[in-house]
Amino acid sequence: MRARDLAVDFPTATLDTPALEAAKLLAEQDLPGLILVDPDGRPLSILPGTQVLRLAVPAYCQDDPALARVVDEAHADLFLRRLGGRTVRECLPEQPKELPVADMKATVLELAALMARTRSPLVAVVDGDRLVGAVTLQSLLDHVLEL
Amino acid sequence: MRARDLAVDFPTATLDTPALEAAKLLAEQDLPGLILVDPDGRPLSILPGTQVLRLAVPAYCQDDPALARVVDEAHADLFLRRLGGRTVRECLPEQPKELPVADMKATVLELAALMARTRSPLVAVVDGDRLVGAVTLQSLLDHVLEL
Repeated sequence: MRARDLAVDFPTATLDTPALEAAKLLAEQDLPGLILVDPDGRPLSILPGTQVLRLAVPAYCQDDPALARVVDEAHADLFLRRLGGRTVRECLPEQPKELPVADMKATVLELAALMARTRSPLVAVVDGDRLVGAVTLQSLLDHVLEL
Repeated sequence: MRARDLAVDFPTATLDTPALEAAKLLAEQDLPGLILVDPDGRPLSILPGTQVLRLAVPAYCQDDPALARVVDEAHADLFLRRLGGRTVRECLPEQPKELPVADMKATVLELAALMARTRSPLVAVVDGDRLVGAVTLQSLLDHVLEL
């Protein structure tokens, strides 16, 4: 069993995808993250679901829970307004880390090591430099546990 | 809307839970992670799903993808054998970070800030020091996007 056998189609986004659209995709399809591709379909990065939240939280609340507490809960809709007009580009973590990208011949063990090392529950699978699908932690566990 | 309104029951594990049982729980219930509690039900840590894989990958493969590649794929069952007899305690990341734990009065903004800062798609909700449930990224996004 290799990455090509475990990989499934997976939604992608680009750096210019609206943040709100990315958030909806994550929520509606219950995804652990999104694969970001360049205009030629090459994987650029993985956007973890939690990082979309960074845009929705005002900067003054990010590091000070006390400030987040005093913002009236009635203003939760601020959330959506803050995401409006912004793009995925602004959600990306500042320091790019090792990308969870594997080629089609990657073994189950290789995929597991990559997920563990990058802490990403999502690995992009490429043929050359073109994205062909993704393997999720879920599908990997299902496979190894023979569920 | 506060954490107490968004929190749902969530499976827990202890440091002594077998790693294989934790992996099955993650896979069967499609969870982003598990909440680890002490014998008194106080949250100790969050175990991200990817970290269960760390035990399944032999040490010599963890940092060297080339070695993981040469391990015969037919030995994927090594996976299960390696998990056998080991516990969640051994899966925990070495350096404990800020725990994604919020009290019942935490606002949506506070929960979002906590998830973004700790990069955890799962927040344990406590009443005093007792676990009462969890809020997932999924449920938070569903709420703010009004899905």
